[in-house]
Amino acid sequence: MTAATTSALEYLWEARSIAIVGASNRDGALGSLPIKYLQRYGYAGTIVPINPSAKEVHGLPSYPSLAVAPMPIDLALVMVSATHVADTIDECAAAGIPMVIIGASGFAEAGPEGAALQREIESRAKSAGIRLLGPNCIGAVGFATKLMATFTPLFSAREVPWQTGNIGFVSQSGALGFGAVSLALERGLGLGWAINTGNEADVTALEVLEALAQLQSCHALLAYLEQLSDANALRRLAVLGKPMAFIKAGGSDAGASAAASHTGALATADRVVNAALRKYGIARAQDVDELLDFGEAFSQPRRPAGPRVAVVSTSGGSGILATDAIESSTLTLATLGEATQAVLDEFVPAFGSTTNPVDVTATVMSDVSVFSRCLDAVADDPGVDTIIACFCVLVDDDVDAIVSTLGTVAARSGKPVLVARTGGDFLAPLAKDALRHAGIPSYTTPTRAVRAADALWTVWAEGRSPTVLTLQSVTPPSHADEHSLKLLLAAAGLPVTRGRLVHSDSDAQDAVLELGGLAVGKAVVPGLLHKTDAGGVELGITPETASRVYQRLKQLGGEVRFEEMVTGHTEVLVGVASTPLGPVVSVGTGGIHTEAMGDVTVRLAPVDMHEAAAMIAETAVGRLLTSTRGQPAGDIPSLAQLVATVSQIVDGWPAGFELDLNPVAVFPTGIRILDAAYVEPRAK
Amino acid sequence: MTAATTSALEYLWEARSIAIVGASNRDGALGSLPIKYLQRYGYAGTIVPINPSAKEVHGLPSYPSLAVAPMPIDLALVMVSATHVADTIDECAAAGIPMVIIGASGFAEAGPEGAALQREIESRAKSAGIRLLGPNCIGAVGFATKLMATFTPLFSAREVPWQTGNIGFVSQSGALGFGAVSLALERGLGLGWAINTGNEADVTALEVLEALAQLQSCHALLAYLEQLSDANALRRLAVLGKPMAFIKAGGSDAGASAAASHTGALATADRVVNAALRKYGIARAQDVDELLDFGEAFSQPRRPAGPRVAVVSTSGGSGILATDAIESSTLTLATLGEATQAVLDEFVPAFGSTTNPVDVTATVMSDVSVFSRCLDAVADDPGVDTIIACFCVLVDDDVDAIVSTLGTVAARSGKPVLVARTGGDFLAPLAKDALRHAGIPSYTTPTRAVRAADALWTVWAEGRSPTVLTLQSVTPPSHADEHSLKLLLAAAGLPVTRGRLVHSDSDAQDAVLELGGLAVGKAVVPGLLHKTDAGGVELGITPETASRVYQRLKQLGGEVRFEEMVTGHTEVLVGVASTPLGPVVSVGTGGIHTEAMGDVTVRLAPVDMHEAAAMIAETAVGRLLTSTRGQPAGDIPSLAQLVATVSQIVDGWPAGFELDLNPVAVFPTGIRILDAAYVEPRAK
Repeated sequence: MTAATTSALEYLWEARSIAIVGASNRDGALGSLPIKYLQRYGYAGTIVPINPSAKEVHGLPSYPSLAVAPMPIDLALVMVSATHVADTIDECAAAGIPMVIIGASGFAEAGPEGAALQREIESRAKSAGIRLLGPNCIGAVGFATKLMATFTPLFSAREVPWQTGNIGFVSQSGALGFGAVSLALERGLGLGWAINTGNEADVTALEVLEALAQLQSCHALLAYLEQLSDANALRRLAVLGKPMAFIKAGGSDAGASAAASHTGALATADRVVNAALRKYGIARAQDVDELLDFGEAFSQPRRPAGPRVAVVSTSGGSGILATDAIESSTLTLATLGEATQAVLDEFVPAFGSTTNPVDVTATVMSDVSVFSRCLDAVADDPGVDTIIACFCVLVDDDVDAIVSTLGTVAARSGKPVLVARTGGDFLAPLAKDALRHAGIPSYTTPTRAVRAADALWTVWAEGRSPTVLTLQSVTPPSHADEHSLKLLLAAAGLPVTRGRLVHSDSDAQDAVLELGGLAVGKAVVPGLLHKTDAGGVELGITPETASRVYQRLKQLGGEVRFEEMVTGHTEVLVGVASTPLGPVVSVGTGGIHTEAMGDVTVRLAPVDMHEAAAMIAETAVGRLLTSTRGQPAGDIPSLAQLVATVSQIVDGWPAGFELDLNPVAVFPTGIRILDAAYVEPRAK
Repeated sequence: MTAATTSALEYLWEARSIAIVGASNRDGALGSLPIKYLQRYGYAGTIVPINPSAKEVHGLPSYPSLAVAPMPIDLALVMVSATHVADTIDECAAAGIPMVIIGASGFAEAGPEGAALQREIESRAKSAGIRLLGPNCIGAVGFATKLMATFTPLFSAREVPWQTGNIGFVSQSGALGFGAVSLALERGLGLGWAINTGNEADVTALEVLEALAQLQSCHALLAYLEQLSDANALRRLAVLGKPMAFIKAGGSDAGASAAASHTGALATADRVVNAALRKYGIARAQDVDELLDFGEAFSQPRRPAGPRVAVVSTSGGSGILATDAIESSTLTLATLGEATQAVLDEFVPAFGSTTNPVDVTATVMSDVSVFSRCLDAVADDPGVDTIIACFCVLVDDDVDAIVSTLGTVAARSGKPVLVARTGGDFLAPLAKDALRHAGIPSYTTPTRAVRAADALWTVWAEGRSPTVLTLQSVTPPSHADEHSLKLLLAAAGLPVTRGRLVHSDSDAQDAVLELGGLAVGKAVVPGLLHKTDAGGVELGITPETASRVYQRLKQLGGEVRFEEMVTGHTEVLVGVASTPLGPVVSVGTGGIHTEAMGDVTVRLAPVDMHEAAAMIAETAVGRLLTSTRGQPAGDIPSLAQLVATVSQIVDGWPAGFELDLNPVAVFPTGIRILDAAYVEPRAK
């Protein structure tokens, strides 16, 4: 994105003048709503209604066309029907308008004709140097400037709990997006920007997010996305380092397309999205409520130094729910230090609990100085990174003092404090605002508070330094078969099975002897990916059977490779597959049943040794390698080294490839790549 | 539970008189709150304050002791400190009070001394025939009778959105439980009963649930549980057929205790709870919000005839989120019939979607007659069991007509209609009440609506007829080893490996020849569960090696069994383990790496063939058996038969046993139990 286009996007929230093309005086008409909103919420810039016949719209001077409007216009909100949009864009171009929002539906979402219309407006905008938001787009809101370039009915409600904050919200869905905005307003979560990108003929959600992330005033970003396929845009966005949470909808496995290799099949769309978001430190929210929950955590200024959480509750039940949630998160339950323990032992009644999760009991809550002592002790504990305070029924009078204590502790310790307040707002009508004012995000349940704390840790820990490695590329030749691929991998220092091509009956016998008297034979046929299925692999070849096996494999139409036969190993799959979000590296159960087992973990490449070891630990086969039940453990460090190296050598390989190392034999000491396959981009 | 105890529990909501022992005039005192509540909410029975010195408490005549109170008392709420509780129980006994609630903390939750105190009050109550709720219990509320036998601060809030409904709520946690009650009141979910069971010295949560389930006026039950270990009570409750949802907290795997066999280790506490709840058609909620969401669905009277859901939305985004949620539930996306399609094709604009999920677009919403036609068509479709209608921003004036349409369709079709309204309440302040009045549960997001619809289907489908089979018991002998166990299993018609004990070198050679020249030898040592680890298994025995192997295995201290050696199979684990919730049957990946793989699915025994096949389909090894990649499929019907039979033969076996069939060899045709182990109750 160039500087010029960045400034065009900024008109979505900074325009000093906005034209409404298709402005209307009729109450409730779509061409009336934006003007009413701009007036109602107090937009300070110039509103320019465009209407072929009206002299005035809602008391403002109206113009029959953009051509005759005398003032410079930064932003046009085009409210004419689909078939008139193309001409309107030409008029915007003539008037020198840099940024245009197209509200109308009836484009790519409505079938082939609409798609053609969309290509037409895209091309006209492009040649005129105009940036387009939409079509099929409900518009954009800049909360600080009250720039209401939208016709969502949301802002026509009788009482809108309007507020301005520092969070940017971008949605590919219009109605659902502004529905989420209304839920944010209702819970008092301050947004600074709300932008719907509609059909994305030109401007994409990632591009808007990037523009917002560059603003100093934007503290965090939330997004609802249905498409996420631009690896470069995602990387540029991630580098800006703002806390982010996305809903990625349509993410079920059913959506993954067929792939040629095991690795390709296992890198389902959903796993790739998870890998990419994880890589870039973006939290993935499962639902709209959760997205806003994460926004609450991001909007407070404190960041955790580590994953260790102390839970301080007034109820054993809350502590148990919080612990359950922590165990299924990336957080850990902090072990409290002796000094902390001493304070808690002194003040917490016998029927409470002084170990984490701490139950100070409702008794302690009635004496705020005692509660404050306990909370201070926990916050001062160097083994605690985040504090989750759980209250249940907490009524009126208690609230002020407790909230003030929580706020003081958060400010003093610099540690995030999150509250789970499992009770109706009616119990303490002032608590919500008081907590928000103190910078303490609050949630209805301990589980929600823990998930938000987990998101805060995720964006902070994972997002601090996206790995960008540049390694020498060793792209495979265009018709790489197993044999040539193994040569290439060996050249990169990777441990492949010893072996060679054999060319005659006697050569086959020699090869078996060279390999120790027992060998595996393989048909080396370019494009034959699943050799075992095709009878292209034979085990246990002896010098006696060598020539017979050679002849049989030769008949499959390619070369024949004999290699060492190994036993006593565990079979693991290591693979890398190109995806729209960049290459992903996979580790899982190997062998021919790989897909059936579905045991795989996926990350965006490249990964380092540390990350590779973490991947292995997540898989069932990784647990098996650490198992000592009747079998020695597998050589996990060597396997991790392989995963890391493989994830790095694919840098620069052409988009669309798949590299399958399956199986990789893992021995108690050492590993060996038993089979390797490369799928070329064009082969798919 | 006898009729007598049932009637005692009913005093928790039907008492005509209630004594408050430890009544206080002091504002905010715990002994003051219940009396204030009984007065504030309008309890029509007799309130009897007991206070050693006061003549009057809150304007009511007070008595120095229960002994001098002249009226019959149905229920006593005892608010004295822990050390005075035992004597008070004696006084309750003397006064003929059948039901007593103990509020005080300081019992089993506070250490050994408290536990002794708790045993003491339990024993005194028992010998007097008094039922005890608590101790460490915040009390009980009967909403219809306004029987506020509680000191929770909840009811002291300035404005409580009081209402009475048909849902029973039972919680083992007091503070969290009444926190959840306040959230229910806030969202307008009508409760009829809210009861905290505290330490459960006597009355348990399951017992209270059973008593409530027997009430005609109770339509559904919600519970927060930390302990769930009474299989009989759960079965009695389930048979009553009321829709139920439980939170089971403390359910993480970390809590599972060590077990001797693979089956025991795999039947973690959490898996057993899931299996039990599933068996009895009880929905498991993951969080408090979700528990109340499920309550909303249960409180409407319609029940789905099947799992097929039609999604009707005004926004593509909502449809996608709903579809994602349906794919990870037990529901399916309905395929709409031709007649339905024709109506939708006629009315839905081109930029909407006429296939499920249907997007009628916001345009259709502006003409209620069109919306009504579309909704009627979907509801009349015989392929649709439940309708989920998703709206986003839906403002004031639209609401009445749409809500009335939804209500009419639900009433006419008899199909459940659930609404996802992703928008703040401020957009349409009247919508919430209107929807509730129309019997339409509503949720903030499509995901939450789908999960609630899933719970509704779960309780309806699974709960209709809890399987109760009575089969002939074949309890293993008290020292069953592999050999005797295989004889027992063979007698039950199960396919075990052919083989026999061998008693000498020559006998061993004979045995190998009988078994076809190749055999497996096994040490048969009672109590030796993991033979492979101990070197107690040897494969590939020929007549030549027979005597050497026999001698070696003999040295392990038991008998020696030779049996047929099988190949070309897939290894599966089938097991049954006794748990506090009854025996559970497990199926998963077999072999020595079973626990490492963690591939297992668990149900409460017994299961039938159909259920067994469903279990197999859920596992990775089950997918592997259906895989045809290079291998013939496994004999799944025979495996399912085995699972069902095994789950049935353990009926009547003593509590605490574990039966491990691991591995079971599954061939393309047929199966064979390769190894079997029985762990006796006392061995653990």
